[in-house]
Order: sequence, then structure tokens, then C-alpha cells
Amino acid sequence: MSDMSSLNRKLIQTLAETISKQVDHFNKTEVECLIREFNVLLGECAASGRAVNGLDKEKFRSILHNNFGMTDDMIMDLAPLLVDPTVFRTFDRDNDSFVSLKEWIEGLSVFLRGTMDEKIKYCFQVYDLNSDNYISREEMFHLLKNSLIRQPTEEDPDEGIKDLVEITLKRMDHDHDGRLSFSDFEKAVKEENLLLEAFGTCLPDIMSTEAFEQHVFQEQLVL
Amino acid sequence: MSDMSSLNRKLIQTLAETISKQVDHFNKTEVECLIREFNVLLGECAASGRAVNGLDKEKFRSILHNNFGMTDDMIMDLAPLLVDPTVFRTFDRDNDSFVSLKEWIEGLSVFLRGTMDEKIKYCFQVYDLNSDNYISREEMFHLLKNSLIRQPTEEDPDEGIKDLVEITLKRMDHDHDGRLSFSDFEKAVKEENLLLEAFGTCLPDIMSTEAFEQHVFQEQLVL
Repeated sequence: MSDMSSLNRKLIQTLAETISKQVDHFNKTEVECLIREFNVLLGECAASGRAVNGLDKEKFRSILHNNFGMTDDMIMDLAPLLVDPTVFRTFDRDNDSFVSLKEWIEGLSVFLRGTMDEKIKYCFQVYDLNSDNYISREEMFHLLKNSLIRQPTEEDPDEGIKDLVEITLKRMDHDHDGRLSFSDFEKAVKEENLLLEAFGTCLPDIMSTEAFEQHVFQEQLVL
Repeated sequence: MSDMSSLNRKLIQTLAETISKQVDHFNKTEVECLIREFNVLLGECAASGRAVNGLDKEKFRSILHNNFGMTDDMIMDLAPLLVDPTVFRTFDRDNDSFVSLKEWIEGLSVFLRGTMDEKIKYCFQVYDLNSDNYISREEMFHLLKNSLIRQPTEEDPDEGIKDLVEITLKRMDHDHDGRLSFSDFEKAVKEENLLLEAFGTCLPDIMSTEAFEQHVFQEQLVL
């Protein structure tokens, strides 16, 4: 092993030790794997001549698509879907348009191993498009319009979505103020877990998660 | 009201009464709505010059797509997906290549309002491609190959899926016979509900379900 790669190895270990103390659900070895994987992903960004401050929107979107099957292709004829950029916004905590190493690992800790409480918090952040701590009628309408397939036979498909927003409010708006607070959302999801992703898929399914963990943790450990 | 439509109405009511006694989760009025909706769907088949013994595969597929967003468009570059035809096979209990009125209502009772036990049974039937009461390694491989997005960077993407099949067996094959019996599958899903659709989406999401119920039950009741 050269001095350079030995130094590199040492640096990654130190960084992994620090991050594993700040982020839940991953041990030091797993964080090391995630750092190596992040470097590979960042290298792919750099190779295509893009900035390397972190994962940009384009790269982030393609990672989510390739690894977790998260995509908006299924509603191709609609306006550009919000889900990916919205997930991006939730990962990119400091809002600098790049997902840094730490933000990536923090996001993955919820994606891959989050508790129900963490997932409820995450989904609420994704759906709260303007980050004002409420999911409003307008936000629900916007999210459902993009995530639901419309029936081609309907004369005014927006009407159906408006009705659905009202049904959802009736079901989830416990304090009757015409919008969903975090507490409304949390209560509803705890009563019916299926409501977690009510306004659009923003978490990977269980097999994609297994496949990703296998790819990052198992294969890299063998090397 | 003409004698004809009054007769029609009477017939639908009698039919609804019979079916509502045989199928769970829908009352007589709801079955009436489902019969009317079925007639509309069947009329669309007839209008395009197709047979009207029931819903054929093509119509069934488009209904699942339009109403429940169930689709294989997201994996367009893979071989034709099994999920829809497989869901079709599960609805089409008498295996005559048409989903009859009764089969449609029976299927929807699980789709829209099924208990966890009913959904486990349904998903197992969908995944048991050759109906031999086991989900084999080959069936898992086939299902996961079609439902998972592959990583374009992988040299042999089949290898990753094979590994995933082994991980899944380790987790779900309680009696260690190298395949999933219904009892293996049931036990695993009861421990971790997310495993219900482990091998591919075959149930509608909660908002599509709400929207469908609203469309069929609410709007028709207003008429």
C-alpha cells in the first residue's frame, strides 16, 4: 500500500469515527463504507465536469432512481414532479444546493434504517413544500396532482383531487384549522401507517433498501 | 322512468343483494355502485369491438393503471413486467381469461378494504407464479428482476438479485427448505408489514384507494 492511500485510509477512518458519533443507526465501519461510496459518486460528478461541493440535484436524482427506483417516469405526461427535488431539499439541510457527505449519511440513516418517528418527521418535511410547518390545502393539492394518475375519462380531473384533499383533511386535520400540523400528521400516521406516504412516494421500498445495503456494506467489506 | 330502465334497476338491485351476501366488506348499496361501474367499463370494452364476457387483460391493465397508478412504465427497458398479468391471474379465479363481475367485486374487496390477513393471502397468490403454493428461488428472482431498478454500473446485475434472493430466504424461510411456503410468508409479513409487497407492488396505495372509492361510491350515489 502506498503512503498516499494509507494516509487516505487513515483520514477516512477518523472522519468515520466523528460522523458515526453524530448520526444514528450506522456503526463506524458502515460509515466508512458510506464515505467510500460517496467518494465514488462524487468522482462520477467530477468526471462529467460538474462541481464537486457535494451531490448536485441531477446526480442526486439519478442515484435515487438507480438505487431506490424512485422516479417520476410513471407520470411522464404531467408537469415535472416535485418528489425528487423535494426529497433533495430535505436532504440538503443547509440549503446550499449540494448534498454534502454528512447530509448524505444523515439522510440515508432515515432512508435505510429510520424509526417510524424519524420517517414521520422526514415525510412531513418533504410534504411541507414551503417549510412553514404546515401542509396546506394548496400543498396537498399540488402533491396529489403530481402523484396520482388521473382518470382520462374525467371532465375536470382537478375536481376529484380537490374532493380528495377535503376527505384527507376530514380524516387527518384533528384540530380543524384547515391544514395539517406536524401533530395532525403524526397522529394520523400512527393510527394508519399507510398514511405515511399519502402525498407521494418519498422513501425507498424494503427490497431496494436491502439491495443498497448489500451493495454498500457487504461488497465493500469484502474488498 | 321507462319500463326498461326500471327493470334494469330492479335486476341490479337483486344482483347486488345476492353478491353482497357472498363478498366481504361491501354493503348492498356499494355493490350496486360497483355493478353500475362494471357495466360502464364493460361498455367501453364492447365499444372498442372486443368480447364482453368480462374485463379482458388489456382493459384490466388499463383500469389498474388509470385508477390505481399500477404500472410498469417505470421499468420500461426491462422485459415485460409480470405484475399486472399476475394480478390479473389472481382476480381471474376461474382462469377463463376474463374478470367477471363477481371476480371484479371479490378482487376489489381485498384491493380496497382487505384485512391484513386477506392481503397476505392475495400477495402470496400473486407472487406464486406457477400456483404450486410455494414462492421458489426462481419465482423470487423473476419478480425482483422485474420490480427492482438495476444499477447501470453493475457488471452482472443478476448477481446482485441472486444475493438478494438468498438474503430474503435467510430472513423469511423459517422452515429452511429453500422456498417460501404460505406460512413462511405470513410469519415474515406479520413481523414486518413492509414485506407484504416485497416482490413487487400489487396493491393500490391509500390515496388511489380513497380516490377510487370516492369516484365509485360518492359520485354515483349523488346521481
